[in-house]
Amino acid sequence: MSVYTRVEADDLCALLAHYAVGELEDFAGISAGVTNTNYFVDTSLGRWVLTLFEQVDESELPFFMQLMDHLAGHGVPCAHPVARDDGGFLSRVRGRPAALVYRLSGASETAPGPDHCRSLGGVVAEMHRAVSGFTPVQKNARNLDWVAAAARRLNGLMDTAEHALLAEEIAFQQEAIGTLYAELPAAVVHADLFRDNVLFDHARVSGLIDFYYACHDYLLFDLAIICNDWAFGDDERYRPAFWQAFMHAYTRRRAPTDAEIAAWPAMLRAAALRFWASRLIDAYFPMSGEVVHIKDPAPFKRLLLAHREAAPALVPA
Amino acid sequence: MSVYTRVEADDLCALLAHYAVGELEDFAGISAGVTNTNYFVDTSLGRWVLTLFEQVDESELPFFMQLMDHLAGHGVPCAHPVARDDGGFLSRVRGRPAALVYRLSGASETAPGPDHCRSLGGVVAEMHRAVSGFTPVQKNARNLDWVAAAARRLNGLMDTAEHALLAEEIAFQQEAIGTLYAELPAAVVHADLFRDNVLFDHARVSGLIDFYYACHDYLLFDLAIICNDWAFGDDERYRPAFWQAFMHAYTRRRAPTDAEIAAWPAMLRAAALRFWASRLIDAYFPMSGEVVHIKDPAPFKRLLLAHREAAPALVPA
Repeated sequence: MSVYTRVEADDLCALLAHYAVGELEDFAGISAGVTNTNYFVDTSLGRWVLTLFEQVDESELPFFMQLMDHLAGHGVPCAHPVARDDGGFLSRVRGRPAALVYRLSGASETAPGPDHCRSLGGVVAEMHRAVSGFTPVQKNARNLDWVAAAARRLNGLMDTAEHALLAEEIAFQQEAIGTLYAELPAAVVHADLFRDNVLFDHARVSGLIDFYYACHDYLLFDLAIICNDWAFGDDERYRPAFWQAFMHAYTRRRAPTDAEIAAWPAMLRAAALRFWASRLIDAYFPMSGEVVHIKDPAPFKRLLLAHREAAPALVPA
Repeated sequence: MSVYTRVEADDLCALLAHYAVGELEDFAGISAGVTNTNYFVDTSLGRWVLTLFEQVDESELPFFMQLMDHLAGHGVPCAHPVARDDGGFLSRVRGRPAALVYRLSGASETAPGPDHCRSLGGVVAEMHRAVSGFTPVQKNARNLDWVAAAARRLNGLMDTAEHALLAEEIAFQQEAIGTLYAELPAAVVHADLFRDNVLFDHARVSGLIDFYYACHDYLLFDLAIICNDWAFGDDERYRPAFWQAFMHAYTRRRAPTDAEIAAWPAMLRAAALRFWASRLIDAYFPMSGEVVHIKDPAPFKRLLLAHREAAPALVPA
C-alpha cells in the first residue's frame, strides 16, 4: 500500500478547473511508488497521472518540474507536467503539493535484457546532451556530505567492521573529489535511474520517470548508478553483454572523456556507497506511517566490495 | 504531389545532430499538405514529422512555434515542435526554414459525425481557454483589410454581380467591427480548423495540426470557421445535430458571452467571406510551381448567401 492520500472525484473536478485538459472521465489509485501518492486520471482530452508529493521538499519541486518540462521539450521520452491555466506546474490537492503529469505508455521491466539496455543507453545519452542547456541548479541532497552525516548517525548501531568500511569508502571518495573527479563533466542528472524508473514498450524505452532525486552531479555518477542496477542482476553477477549494449548505444551520441574512463572504478563505488548509506538509514531509522518498502542495504555493500576487487570497464572492448 | 523539396538521409542525419532525439531509423515524404513539405522521420527515440516551410513568412515562424509549444504544454492535443540542443525550435534544411514536430497518432476524418464534433468542441474550448495566458501577438494576415485588397485585385476579373456581393459584404463587416464586434473576446485563434487539420483516433481528437494561419482574432471567428466546415457537409446543407454536439461540449468548458451570441450570424458571414476571397485569389492568381490543390471558391459564396438568408444559432436549443 503506497497510496498515502485518498483523493475523491470532487477533488479532481476542482483540480481540473485550473487546467485545459477537459473533464474528468475516470480515475484510480496506483499502487507503485514509495514516496508519493499517484493516481491515473482520464479526462475527455487525454490520460494523465496525478502525483501528490508526500515527502519531497516543496521548495525543490519547481526545479523538478522545469527539468521534466525541459527534457520532454527536447524530445527525451519522460514524465512531464501539464501547465495550469495560470502557467504554473504545481497545484494543491488535499493539502499536498501536486502535479498533473502526461501519462506514458509502457511498463517497467524487472528482468531487462541487452535490448532494453541498448535502448536505455540511447535515451540516457540524449538526456545527458539535453541537460546542457538547462540552467537551474540543485545540489545533490544525497551527496557525500549527506553520506558522511549518515555514517555519523549509524555509528554504534552498525557492526563495527561494516562501519569501518563505510568510513574508509567515504574517505576514499573525499580524496577523489579533488583528484580523480576534478575534470569530470557535470550537469543535472537523474541520479535514480533504477529499473523501476524506466518504462518500456516492448524493448524500447517509452519514458523515464521519477525525477525527484535529480540534481547537479557528474554525468558519470548517473552512469554508475545505472551500471550497478542494470548490469548487475538480482544475483549480483556482472553481465558484460548488458553494459556493452548500453554503452554501445550511449557512445554513439556522447563519447566519454578520458577523465571519465579513468574515474569509472571509483565512481561505481561512489554510486554503491550512496545507496548503501541511504538504505542503511531507511533500515535503522524507518519513517513512521504506512511505509512498507524498506529495501535491503546488503546488496550495495556487496557491490561495493566487488568493485574494490575488480570493477568492469566503462567502455567494454 | 505536394512534397516540394526533396530531402535525403544525409540532410536528416545532419539535422538530427542538433537534437536529442536519437539516430535516424527511417523516413518518408508525406503527400498531404498544400503549402509545406512534410516528412515522417523515425529515430531511435521516437516518431516525428519534419516540416519545411515553403511559403510561410519566416519572421512569423517563431510565433507559431511558441503557440504550439504553449498549447501542448497546457495539455491541448496538437502538433508541437521539438526543441534543439541550443533551445530554439527552428532549423534549416535544404535552404528552407524547418521544424521537427512530435508526430501525432490518428488521421483526419473527411466525413465526421456528431461524435467527432463533440470531441472537437471540447478540445476547441480548452484551446480557447489555454490561449488566455499566451502573450505573443500576431495579426491576422487574412483580415478584412486583406480581403478588401483582394477585392480590388479581383475587380474587372470577376463577374460584376459577384464582385458587387463581395464589396457589399466587406462594407457590412467593416461596419460590424465597431458595433456588433466591439465587445467580442479576442485572443490567439487557430483560424483554419477545417476537417483536414484535425486528427482523430476513432471519434476522439488526437491532435490539431497546421497552426500556420493562427493569429489574434475573435474567438467567435474561430467558431464560425469551424461551423462553416464541420456543420455544413459537402452538400452545403446545415446539420443541426453536428453543431449541437460541438457546442454542447464547448459550452461545458467555456460559456459564450451575450455579445458572441448576438454577433454570430454576422461572424458566420465573415468566415465565409474570408475563405471565398482567398480561394478567389488562389483561382485567379495561381502560384507558379507544383501546386495542384486549387480549391473551388463557389461553395463559400453559396454559404455566404445562405447565411444572409438564415443563419443557425450559436447555441442550439
